Amino acid sequence: MTHPTGLLDDVIHQRVRLGIMAVLAEADEAEFTFLKSELALTDGNLNRHLQVLEDAGYIARRRDRPAGRPRTWIRATTDGANALALHLEMLQRLIDQTKGMP
Amino acid sequence: MTHPTGLLDDVIHQRVRLGIMAVLAEADEAEFTFLKSELALTDGNLNRHLQVLEDAGYIARRRDRPAGRPRTWIRATTDGANALALHLEMLQRLIDQTKGMP
Repeated sequence: MTHPTGLLDDVIHQRVRLGIMAVLAEADEAEFTFLKSELALTDGNLNRHLQVLEDAGYIARRRDRPAGRPRTWIRATTDGANALALHLEMLQRLIDQTKGMP
Repeated sequence: MTHPTGLLDDVIHQRVRLGIMAVLAEADEAEFTFLKSELALTDGNLNRHLQVLEDAGYIARRRDRPAGRPRTWIRATTDGANALALHLEMLQRLIDQTKGMP
């Protein structure tokens, strides 16, 4: 038998990355600075977690430069959106199974 | 504002430790070997995570030796049970908030 936590995807489960994927689920695309302030992260910390998510194929980045100011936009890929949906389903199962608590 | 993931407790959120706390929520006490097989962990891995939970005051261990065979029993403390309950509540909030997904 497999405990529900054995089915959780570590790439998405990590607290900061779960936050990134949750924010991206609510928007088509989010700007780097928006994610940073929404999740109260430093540039370095956000970049590190975006890299893990990008390596897993869960997000994509694009850059633009309106009026000379460079911006980075991040969106969840289809794989990323599916992985998050599955993850939330597993968490729901865990919560429901652990209801008999004090 | 604080994103729900900013309120998650890293001590409990980590996948293996979430599994340990969830199993302990369903039983008064669990034996080391039961936790190990339930969560498919090695001795070293389980011990490492139990130590983190014990340092946080979330679990307690006791040893007995019926018929000469040493056993270790693990239970959640009141603080640990409360921390798990709060954690599951935060996860539920995150799930509910992320419902508009594809």
